[in-house]
Amino acid sequence: MSRHVKNILFIMCDQLRYDYLSCAGHPKLQTPNIDALAARGVRFTQAYVQSPICGASRMSCYTGRYVSSHGASWNGFPLNVGEMTMGDYLRPLGVQTVLVGKTHMEPDTEGMERLGIDPQSIIGVRVSECGFDPYDRDDGLHAFGPDGRYDPRKPRYNTYLNQKGYAGENPWHDWANAGEGEGNALASGWAMRNARKPARVKEEDSETPYMTRRAMQFIDEAGDAPWCLHLSFIKPHWPYIAPAPYNDMYGPDDVIPAVRSEAERVDPHPVFAGFMQHRVSQSFSRDEVRAEVIPVYMGLIKQIDDQMGVLFSFLKERGLFDNTLVVFTSDHGDYLGDHWMGEKDLFHQPSVKIPLIIYDPSPEADAARGTVCDALVEAIDLAPTFLDAIGGDAGEQSHRLEGRSLMPLLHGRNPADWREFVFSEYDYSLSPTAAKLGVAPRDARLFMVADKRWKYIHAIGFRPMLFDLANDPNELHDLGADPAYEGERDRLAAALARWGLRMSQRTTLSETQVAAKRGKVQRRGILIGVWQEEDIPAELWSGYPGDRA
Amino acid sequence: MSRHVKNILFIMCDQLRYDYLSCAGHPKLQTPNIDALAARGVRFTQAYVQSPICGASRMSCYTGRYVSSHGASWNGFPLNVGEMTMGDYLRPLGVQTVLVGKTHMEPDTEGMERLGIDPQSIIGVRVSECGFDPYDRDDGLHAFGPDGRYDPRKPRYNTYLNQKGYAGENPWHDWANAGEGEGNALASGWAMRNARKPARVKEEDSETPYMTRRAMQFIDEAGDAPWCLHLSFIKPHWPYIAPAPYNDMYGPDDVIPAVRSEAERVDPHPVFAGFMQHRVSQSFSRDEVRAEVIPVYMGLIKQIDDQMGVLFSFLKERGLFDNTLVVFTSDHGDYLGDHWMGEKDLFHQPSVKIPLIIYDPSPEADAARGTVCDALVEAIDLAPTFLDAIGGDAGEQSHRLEGRSLMPLLHGRNPADWREFVFSEYDYSLSPTAAKLGVAPRDARLFMVADKRWKYIHAIGFRPMLFDLANDPNELHDLGADPAYEGERDRLAAALARWGLRMSQRTTLSETQVAAKRGKVQRRGILIGVWQEEDIPAELWSGYPGDRA
Repeated sequence: MSRHVKNILFIMCDQLRYDYLSCAGHPKLQTPNIDALAARGVRFTQAYVQSPICGASRMSCYTGRYVSSHGASWNGFPLNVGEMTMGDYLRPLGVQTVLVGKTHMEPDTEGMERLGIDPQSIIGVRVSECGFDPYDRDDGLHAFGPDGRYDPRKPRYNTYLNQKGYAGENPWHDWANAGEGEGNALASGWAMRNARKPARVKEEDSETPYMTRRAMQFIDEAGDAPWCLHLSFIKPHWPYIAPAPYNDMYGPDDVIPAVRSEAERVDPHPVFAGFMQHRVSQSFSRDEVRAEVIPVYMGLIKQIDDQMGVLFSFLKERGLFDNTLVVFTSDHGDYLGDHWMGEKDLFHQPSVKIPLIIYDPSPEADAARGTVCDALVEAIDLAPTFLDAIGGDAGEQSHRLEGRSLMPLLHGRNPADWREFVFSEYDYSLSPTAAKLGVAPRDARLFMVADKRWKYIHAIGFRPMLFDLANDPNELHDLGADPAYEGERDRLAAALARWGLRMSQRTTLSETQVAAKRGKVQRRGILIGVWQEEDIPAELWSGYPGDRA
Repeated sequence: MSRHVKNILFIMCDQLRYDYLSCAGHPKLQTPNIDALAARGVRFTQAYVQSPICGASRMSCYTGRYVSSHGASWNGFPLNVGEMTMGDYLRPLGVQTVLVGKTHMEPDTEGMERLGIDPQSIIGVRVSECGFDPYDRDDGLHAFGPDGRYDPRKPRYNTYLNQKGYAGENPWHDWANAGEGEGNALASGWAMRNARKPARVKEEDSETPYMTRRAMQFIDEAGDAPWCLHLSFIKPHWPYIAPAPYNDMYGPDDVIPAVRSEAERVDPHPVFAGFMQHRVSQSFSRDEVRAEVIPVYMGLIKQIDDQMGVLFSFLKERGLFDNTLVVFTSDHGDYLGDHWMGEKDLFHQPSVKIPLIIYDPSPEADAARGTVCDALVEAIDLAPTFLDAIGGDAGEQSHRLEGRSLMPLLHGRNPADWREFVFSEYDYSLSPTAAKLGVAPRDARLFMVADKRWKYIHAIGFRPMLFDLANDPNELHDLGADPAYEGERDRLAAALARWGLRMSQRTTLSETQVAAKRGKVQRRGILIGVWQEEDIPAELWSGYPGDRA
């Protein structure tokens, strides 16, 4: 197979819904630059994350493995040192694999210590950064509270802001994520009523343009060696606040109605009921909050789109569109008040589906340019796609990588054996709902299995949820307890059971290596079940001289 | 809880059936020394291995985890470098954890290289030896064939034999595992018709007494520091050959009848049918073979029992029975012609059940001495039992250790929440049966779930098997396709499905650590869903000075 891909530009937004792009049909938000990428590539309409939460979703994306395979099932849950990540696959093929922005990785320091790995060594740094070489790691949440910092790492971005004259210990908050308050006070972006105030920082110094520039700096410095650059924006993730003019580009009239019904609040599934009680859900259930926040959420996306314009021009000038695979995606969505929910966490489409656009420069991709693909796609498909694009053998890594290369789909082919189901998981052990329901940490786990028609959610210790995506595309009617749908529930539960028994940990030998081992031990003298010497070829006795002379 | 255990002596035989001990009811074989241990401890009658094959079973035993959790599912399949083993749990508590004999461990050299671990370093050696410090590692299979050695490591035992005057490059085979043949020839133990010839080695220089002496040497050298010694015999595993007098201690009249029926060969399950066709199964289906081999299998066990006598006297002389937990067990059984099978591999009781006797010196164990326990026990229970015995907190390791401490059972207590099911797995991807049936390596996996009454075997791509252990204790009637038992099959399949979704990979945080994280991020400034400053306590804003003066 010919390979025309030299570099990979892997752009991820944080908390960007699948439907907040004009190419995906948003009626008010215009994203011409992202749309232009879609026009040159393939846009996937059925792309699912493996967990609707930053850390777990990203660990799946970077490892190419389901959450229950890699185990880092929530933010700040360390990724086992034995897990391989994108860089481990790409670097041996001569591809610099570099990070600009967020990963939400928490390293397995206990495992590193047990194995004698110095966190400051090159290997230690890569293990600590999801296998990426950190050009500018910044998880984008530099929160401070009475118990101290949320993220102990001091970001380069704060230094940058200080150098630009934005004073204080935490200019990330005081300038980039706060507006002007009353009198001499700050209006923190953490209070959503401040959302539409302009952030105090100049637009060019806000997070999205800063990170875009850092990506371009890396590309300029990278020289001629192939690279995979993960440009990972924090926005449009909260704190919902944007610099001018993006704070004021959209208004309450641009807010599309919440997808919700009173019926959802009548006898809901206990876990769903719990999540609807969370503060963020209560807030986003108020129209006042949606009217204030969603315009800014849209402005932050608009800013990203404008920065995509800058970035894509930069790539074009350097001829990089000729040899670079470009991916635009997100780590999960945002309920924004749909289903009486805020944040993400559960499996309704606004949360579990992501935008996914991939541009492949290869001539083989010409036939599919500008098309939309509705195949069932998972975020774990990206790692094998990258490996495939760069000329590696993703199939030979199928003992580790649980996703599949999207290359056939990018080339307009529809493999007959494409997956029938997508899976996603959520560990709610840290949630107030787990505490309220009295669910032990190990049982506070949800599993989603969906095909193109049905979505089934298994909650350990509770009844399942079920949605008919054809007759109820807005997922307003939970059929999980309806006797009429027992057959569908059984079918999807069986798919989940099969998935639960998948081979996910035989990671040290490939399928090929296993097959190659068949029948080999006999030729190394392991002669099982032989009655007499004559029963097997004499050659097999050659290690055991029959005559001791 | 008071702790009276200082040391752990963890004795494992290889391929010793659960029922080939006089305390377990064998009518001809007398094992008074092992019986004496049982009389001082607890004998478990329902102990199951997690895989009826050496390597996978041992990796489960040493990691305390199911096979599909650790992934090393067959002999020679490397154990992921990220997995923790017994030594990793015990060593931090000041317990030297040492190996004399076999582990069948294959290290993850690729993972070690990726993480920069020198295989010759202390950490590298431990990673390569299941976490044990090797005092005398010897996997006990020093086979040579036309393609070279099966095991590249040259055993100390061969050097020992050479020094004792047993000549040749591989005295393990030529003396310890061969008899005198015709004229000047050797009669290799690999040909079972030679089984009852005396091995050419003197009894005291054969493998079992050698390894027992090595264990005693270690104990004498160990000094006063606590230790966990894994004394791991290769016998009564094949090659079936014993030194005099053990070769001739039992005869064909001592062989108990094979447990088998003609009905088993009528329309058997396809995987079972495949295994019945293997050479070793064909051989053991012949009475001639059983008559020749089983007396020697019994002799090898008798030799182990005699060596247990030597070892236990040694322990007694040194007062070690006062402070040492002693375990006697095996890694799986041996069909020996039962069910028309040789070797192990499938899940009939002669294969998947093991002898398990545990002596606990603690006064708390006095009430249970000499008792028999029929609780459902798994080999993965040993690691948490050891941790518990030595004063560690096995519960705090339950995010990694999937077994349960047996300590309550050793003290005569029966926890109300003890497990209802045991699980075992078998990866037959290397078997001729997988090739013949055209099963891909990743699908060549079998799963057993059993309770005290029923045993259900799930074979990917085939119908299940089912046995009623109450009405058919010899497992001669496979009910896997009988419509009358659909309810039982569904019940056990549901148990297997639940098990498939167990939390097995969230290994980097304990349940306690997870619970302790609840609600913590807010006090580090992550303020989600807040509408206005007044909605939350002022303290939570302390990291964000509202006044910029």
